[in-house]
Amino acid sequence: MTTPTLDLNADLGESFGRWELGDDDAMLGLVTSANVACGFHAGDATTLRRTCAGAAARGVVVGAQVGYRDLAGFGRRFVDMDPGELADDVVYQIGALDGLCRVAGTAVRYVKPHGALYNATVHHEAQAQAVVAAVRDYDPALPVLGLPGSVLLREASAAGLIPVEEFFADRGYTPSGTLVPRRKENALVTDPAAVAARVVRMATEGVVTAVDGSEIAARAASVCLHGDSPGAVDAARAVREALREAGVAVRAFARP
Amino acid sequence: MTTPTLDLNADLGESFGRWELGDDDAMLGLVTSANVACGFHAGDATTLRRTCAGAAARGVVVGAQVGYRDLAGFGRRFVDMDPGELADDVVYQIGALDGLCRVAGTAVRYVKPHGALYNATVHHEAQAQAVVAAVRDYDPALPVLGLPGSVLLREASAAGLIPVEEFFADRGYTPSGTLVPRRKENALVTDPAAVAARVVRMATEGVVTAVDGSEIAARAASVCLHGDSPGAVDAARAVREALREAGVAVRAFARP
Amino acid sequence: MTTPTLDLNADLGESFGRWELGDDDAMLGLVTSANVACGFHAGDATTLRRTCAGAAARGVVVGAQVGYRDLAGFGRRFVDMDPGELADDVVYQIGALDGLCRVAGTAVRYVKPHGALYNATVHHEAQAQAVVAAVRDYDPALPVLGLPGSVLLREASAAGLIPVEEFFADRGYTPSGTLVPRRKENALVTDPAAVAARVVRMATEGVVTAVDGSEIAARAASVCLHGDSPGAVDAARAVREALREAGVAVRAFARP
Amino acid sequence: MTTPTLDLNADLGESFGRWELGDDDAMLGLVTSANVACGFHAGDATTLRRTCAGAAARGVVVGAQVGYRDLAGFGRRFVDMDPGELADDVVYQIGALDGLCRVAGTAVRYVKPHGALYNATVHHEAQAQAVVAAVRDYDPALPVLGLPGSVLLREASAAGLIPVEEFFADRGYTPSGTLVPRRKENALVTDPAAVAARVVRMATEGVVTAVDGSEIAARAASVCLHGDSPGAVDAARAVREALREAGVAVRAFARP
Repeated sequence: MTTPTLDLNADLGESFGRWELGDDDAMLGLVTSANVACGFHAGDATTLRRTCAGAAARGVVVGAQVGYRDLAGFGRRFVDMDPGELADDVVYQIGALDGLCRVAGTAVRYVKPHGALYNATVHHEAQAQAVVAAVRDYDPALPVLGLPGSVLLREASAAGLIPVEEFFADRGYTPSGTLVPRRKENALVTDPAAVAARVVRMATEGVVTAVDGSEIAARAASVCLHGDSPGAVDAARAVREALREAGVAVRAFARP
Repeated sequence: MTTPTLDLNADLGESFGRWELGDDDAMLGLVTSANVACGFHAGDATTLRRTCAGAAARGVVVGAQVGYRDLAGFGRRFVDMDPGELADDVVYQIGALDGLCRVAGTAVRYVKPHGALYNATVHHEAQAQAVVAAVRDYDPALPVLGLPGSVLLREASAAGLIPVEEFFADRGYTPSGTLVPRRKENALVTDPAAVAARVVRMATEGVVTAVDGSEIAARAASVCLHGDSPGAVDAARAVREALREAGVAVRAFARP
Repeated sequence: MTTPTLDLNADLGESFGRWELGDDDAMLGLVTSANVACGFHAGDATTLRRTCAGAAARGVVVGAQVGYRDLAGFGRRFVDMDPGELADDVVYQIGALDGLCRVAGTAVRYVKPHGALYNATVHHEAQAQAVVAAVRDYDPALPVLGLPGSVLLREASAAGLIPVEEFFADRGYTPSGTLVPRRKENALVTDPAAVAARVVRMATEGVVTAVDGSEIAARAASVCLHGDSPGAVDAARAVREALREAGVAVRAFARP
Repeated sequence: MTTPTLDLNADLGESFGRWELGDDDAMLGLVTSANVACGFHAGDATTLRRTCAGAAARGVVVGAQVGYRDLAGFGRRFVDMDPGELADDVVYQIGALDGLCRVAGTAVRYVKPHGALYNATVHHEAQAQAVVAAVRDYDPALPVLGLPGSVLLREASAAGLIPVEEFFADRGYTPSGTLVPRRKENALVTDPAAVAARVVRMATEGVVTAVDGSEIAARAASVCLHGDSPGAVDAARAVREALREAGVAVRAFARP
């Protein structure tokens, strides 16, 4: 009998110049995969290099969190880009972060879209294909991390890339398995203990309780923890501890 | 007896979105090394990828032309940056361009600072060291292209990097071998035939005529042609043809 | 019997730093209204001030051409912004241009959305309302220039602003009076004489020939000439001359 | 006998999109003048409008805190700009903020350079003149707030503008009356009570104790409080309270 394993990921490297966001140092002690910003939605080069060096020092795997070129909107606004230009922007971002990883003693090991690009590629065929084309052209060995059932992961798979599904530790799920939109009631689970319990149940039973009380299937290789919300570090710590107690090994899905 | 050889370099990839600058396609047929912008002073990802692909298709070597983060100033304004942050910005830019090169079937083969960073690193110790540190950390096999006598090339050499000196085909030289500032008389040589003759003489005799008529020593492995001025393509063509007639082989200094 | 009058408008001030676009000087001699960029999709402050000064010197009325914050996309990509943030960005842009107008001896006299914002506000209620709210809050005496039948002009009218309709001199019209999308055949009318004839017919008869040969009603107080296409100046000159011959007075719709 | 009066100013509106900085709301309850960012070094339009509205609601006077176009460096890096371009950028920024003030029920009432531009204009003639020219062209009734003895204030005065001198509440002074550079010992006074005592003494006796213990003359119409440091609000509150106890009226130097 094998020990179940699970990856924990969080968005890091999201400071920009004078503006600090999130506690990268604390989160790097708790996650196994760091979705590091690439400068388009957040992340100046110095912040990114420091985050990559911190990840390398702690054995945390670095992924490129690519986004729209939109600092003012933090990449959270859909931009109706030409898919070819989007693919080029994604390559640029992966390359930039990979360069910073190289001087920090690591490398980009996977790709995850950020914010509005993440949401767009759940259903937008052309933008999902653009992200996939960029990853395939850059390095087809890089897995793509995304939402179960998304066009992004379907296209990644069709292109021969490795799709990796993630579960959201602190988000409410509808009975049909989609996320409750952020502006609705029950969108967020804020109690660290509840967050931790959900993760453990998903990891050990493959089940999550939806907002209507029904139980739905949920299996994912990785769990997304949010790094910039108040209490993010506490929730991450609770998840990590609960998984340890439940005998779930926490391990990166990508090679270190 | 060996044939003398010379590299011809020009700044390319300097369009940005809707704004076009220079005739990259024509210049790629004439130079052996392309100093490709990296997005900080010019160059959107689509332009850069296209330029890198064009360079790859024609066997032109790509160098990363790194600059200050200053689109509005085209990188031509000195920015008094913290050297550590400058080094990180340089790594970011090299990595980004290297990523675009990778998907275009080539790679960054050397580094040359752009505009005000080029001028600053002629004498500014800390900024020159920052650029050198970035290149060394990224890949110590990458040569650094710069002005003969500059602090940049001295520091590159001291750090174990390969310094490569360049000659300016269309700039006037003072009797002491420095460039005549752009705002002064005789700063520019505009006649294509005169430009070509100067390059040939530098390549075959190691001499250039200064603005006072005196002859001074000038030896450089590479010649910088300007890609965005009116008549740039004509001058480049004249230089190329004159070198052919003079029996000087035109060849990149870096490995292709 | 009154002389018919018509305004001619064009997008100007669209250079940015080193990158030049369009021939503002020539166009300012031909139009009566200048849609001047405001720095978000194009236009550095020096370019904008110079364009405003040129407009003031020639008695051309200045309008603020507001757009998305997207230099890389030249404001031609829809951005799914929060309407409140969009309204604030519009106020910022109007104010910035008005400041440059002030030092140039003129003032912003109307507002016209640019590119993707123009297209979005044809049908996007929330974004149209945001632009209208910004204009109303800034100065309810400023007319809004837009597409006949657009949500933008309807909302402008509902808010007590002055809506001004424009006709596109060089665009094909469908039988139902909408513009033929740019990527389709017959999208553009390129012959200056044909462009001029269409404008005259619209101004004197209120009719334009659609792409299927049918004649449709078309009445607009202003005609949009494109300033950055090859032949833009020739077409503008032909329109101006044809209107003179047809006895149509060319005059700005807004107070100078 | 008249009551002595003093203005208290602080830098506000320095958040940007997702990134929050400083506690504008608390500081607006304590200062009489708000140096509001203008979008070039910090401040998205929504933040700025909210800050201006908050200032208007509390009767706090708004000044335009103009800076270099450098979000990544927060305007803290000297940029060797062409003075004409700098003047145009300053006009653009004043106009943009004035527009946001207008919709918020107030107006820009003075100008203060930010960060590296503040430091540059202490001694850099051409940049100081550029700032002064921009203010004079925009509205010669706007005072300029700056360092006593600076070229900026001297040039402002020579151009017929109103120079206003400020005292730094939490900075160490050298015996010659200049500020101790930030990287040196004694650069900062962090104890709120000590900060408050220094301000009271300056206001009532025109004296400050320098870092060597000597007493030097110090008279200024305004005191700069820092809004983004830890303890900023506490220090501001202590200053305000101490001035009240000392019978010094706190009042804006500019008309509301």
